[in-house]
Amino acid sequence: MRLSRYFLPVLKEDPSEAQIVSHKLMLRAGMIRQQAAGIYAWLPLGLKVLRNIERIVREEQNRAGAIEVLMPTIQSADLWRESGRYDAYGPEMLRFLDRHEREMLYGPTNEEMITAIFRDNVRSYRDLPKNLYHIQWKFRDETRPRFGVMRGREFLMKDAYSFDLDAEAAKKSYDAMFVAYLRTFARLGMVAVPVRAPTGPIGGNLSHEFHILADTGESEVFYDAALEQIGLAEMEAATPGSAVVDRLQSIYAMEQEEHEKVTDCPVPADQLRKRRGIEVGHIFYFGTKYTQAMGCTVQGPDGQVLYPEMGSYGIGVSRLVGGIIEASHDASGIIWPDAVAPFQVGLINLRVDDAKCADAADELFARLNLAGIDTLYDDRDERGGAKFATMDLIGVPTHVTIGPKGLDKGVVEVKDRKTGAKEEMSVEALMNKLTARRA
Amino acid sequence: MRLSRYFLPVLKEDPSEAQIVSHKLMLRAGMIRQQAAGIYAWLPLGLKVLRNIERIVREEQNRAGAIEVLMPTIQSADLWRESGRYDAYGPEMLRFLDRHEREMLYGPTNEEMITAIFRDNVRSYRDLPKNLYHIQWKFRDETRPRFGVMRGREFLMKDAYSFDLDAEAAKKSYDAMFVAYLRTFARLGMVAVPVRAPTGPIGGNLSHEFHILADTGESEVFYDAALEQIGLAEMEAATPGSAVVDRLQSIYAMEQEEHEKVTDCPVPADQLRKRRGIEVGHIFYFGTKYTQAMGCTVQGPDGQVLYPEMGSYGIGVSRLVGGIIEASHDASGIIWPDAVAPFQVGLINLRVDDAKCADAADELFARLNLAGIDTLYDDRDERGGAKFATMDLIGVPTHVTIGPKGLDKGVVEVKDRKTGAKEEMSVEALMNKLTARRA
Repeated sequence: MRLSRYFLPVLKEDPSEAQIVSHKLMLRAGMIRQQAAGIYAWLPLGLKVLRNIERIVREEQNRAGAIEVLMPTIQSADLWRESGRYDAYGPEMLRFLDRHEREMLYGPTNEEMITAIFRDNVRSYRDLPKNLYHIQWKFRDETRPRFGVMRGREFLMKDAYSFDLDAEAAKKSYDAMFVAYLRTFARLGMVAVPVRAPTGPIGGNLSHEFHILADTGESEVFYDAALEQIGLAEMEAATPGSAVVDRLQSIYAMEQEEHEKVTDCPVPADQLRKRRGIEVGHIFYFGTKYTQAMGCTVQGPDGQVLYPEMGSYGIGVSRLVGGIIEASHDASGIIWPDAVAPFQVGLINLRVDDAKCADAADELFARLNLAGIDTLYDDRDERGGAKFATMDLIGVPTHVTIGPKGLDKGVVEVKDRKTGAKEEMSVEALMNKLTARRA
Repeated sequence: MRLSRYFLPVLKEDPSEAQIVSHKLMLRAGMIRQQAAGIYAWLPLGLKVLRNIERIVREEQNRAGAIEVLMPTIQSADLWRESGRYDAYGPEMLRFLDRHEREMLYGPTNEEMITAIFRDNVRSYRDLPKNLYHIQWKFRDETRPRFGVMRGREFLMKDAYSFDLDAEAAKKSYDAMFVAYLRTFARLGMVAVPVRAPTGPIGGNLSHEFHILADTGESEVFYDAALEQIGLAEMEAATPGSAVVDRLQSIYAMEQEEHEKVTDCPVPADQLRKRRGIEVGHIFYFGTKYTQAMGCTVQGPDGQVLYPEMGSYGIGVSRLVGGIIEASHDASGIIWPDAVAPFQVGLINLRVDDAKCADAADELFARLNLAGIDTLYDDRDERGGAKFATMDLIGVPTHVTIGPKGLDKGVVEVKDRKTGAKEEMSVEALMNKLTARRA
């Protein structure tokens, strides 16, 4: 993409409306613009990152055997009366009447709807297990929306719902999602700690929250240092039944509030770590709560009537955009992990008025495109300093600068955004380096 | 995908709630389920088709130079007061108060929001032309939602908005979208007639509707038979400035209501064709209507203040799913064009209790997956007749049946869903045929 044709309204100053770094950087980097309190438009750069995260989340859900559906954003209040949650849910639920005065709501979650779909379309135990998920916009009418997409009102969430015949099978479905979450966050380049969570008002037996570690995180997480011995590569390679799942589920990790309730923490003080985290995923096994309330049954192998055991599994897709920035930035801007970066390469032509530079930059841009390397090409008539600052701000992993001095020597300058390390190399060497990394 | 693990709740009977064939078939084929009047959940098969259409729409928007953003579903009423449309818009607009009693609405369209985004982020004529689009769910509170996804309340739409410095440049942007629409519908396998449309309440100078021809269409379209000489291939290969654009814009084509207003139709009676159509796209050039009303200006080359000229360009993505079925079905079910088919191949094992058949089917399924041919594999313990009926109903383009008699001869049976033609061939010949088609 040529920057001259793109839509990237970067801001030079920190916007006053933003309190936390990810919100500031998303506004400055032209990723989002607020349209109403807690409601954002995603500009091209932000949308690319959102879609990259969504794609990885989807791939790992599919790999785990979950099947994608898409439920609507608007739901009928009647559905929520069946589960008893219509009255129980607070003012976070956005409720309204349609033109025929029917009570409707903007879905904050989909347990009721998926249970109704399952109830109306599945008859036999032979159709189990089943895990259905969707990636859809939700609305929670937060009283004080803040922190940009980290606590917005309209937000994109992946929610999956498993249906099993018995508790043992349900634990298998739970573990499959546990593995999918480990893999998902590791692929995103994030260390995510699975924290044993209270099951709370949703009820049920087993629950984990996944917190990515970031110094600016909203929560305080206490965990056994043994967790730190499990690397990203091991998490990314996890499979259902693999030892890493048992280890992670047995190692102590709690959010502050829960940790403080524990009277005799099994972890020796010198082994206990305390870090800040951001909750980006939450998985629940809650049994027959909804299937019983909503009369969702299947016929068992002996003709008996059974209530399927359910679990639900959420990932905050839009929240992750902010979460990753909180975990990965410096004073100059965002540092995207490769897997979610909006572009792989930022190509800077230092002198657009120099025909030799312009030709070389155009030619390299064409080669990068041909090689399938998504490149943002700064072909604007701007000062070099402004171009460098923009590439740093928006966090493209590799910057390639073409200038007259380098061309005379037959080299371009290649900078690693994360380390800041610069080296000069020929275009051939650059292409080899970039294509090798993808292989 | 193995059907035994999929979620495909087909119905044997025509559902009583459906009046038109696409609605009946989408329910019967397990593509959608109604959640409230005019509000549908997309089940896995329906979602795959929706995503295939969305992908083609997106590719042609990108090719035309439009840049993707994503605006939220919920908007502030204040925004619509700026354009004057808040009071003008009828009860189709879903309005509500949030928890702080602020007036909000579920966006039926996005002219106001995109104009505000443009106004707040673009300063100079050098940033023009620009065309921003998104593919997002909209809501129109139809008083009588019907015909399934053809006239739903919550629907998926692609809407693009162009900004240009003057009328001449705006016409170029309009033509670029005109071309993108020709290509999009042709790639979807549909004959779409561009009909000169009244500009109506939205105002402005130039507008076309695109109607796909279907005997069950809701509208009546009158056009010059000369249109029929322009084939799908020519439309798909259209480029801005190509002769086909001028020809299509100059050939007579009108919807009934407009046609009846024409006192001396230029088309001789024997040249005039009358067909039923379904509106699936609509493009408008409306000038400075919104930029003036909302104070959206850019600085011109001589420092003067200019109101950008705008156009808007919509495609009903979810509506197209129904529209394509209306145009392409028979008594047995849906006939998907290859480009949007949810699976390319339906693989039927006639005898799951026969180890030789099961092995051969498993092996072929593995080969098809390896070759990247998306296959639905009916591995269920069902009668052959039910399996054939399901594949016909859901409209997979190529059916491959494995049975004991064929295996003895070293062949499988290959059926073309559209023509019904069957032939026996070896697995090697089948693989060659399928991979050749993709090349």
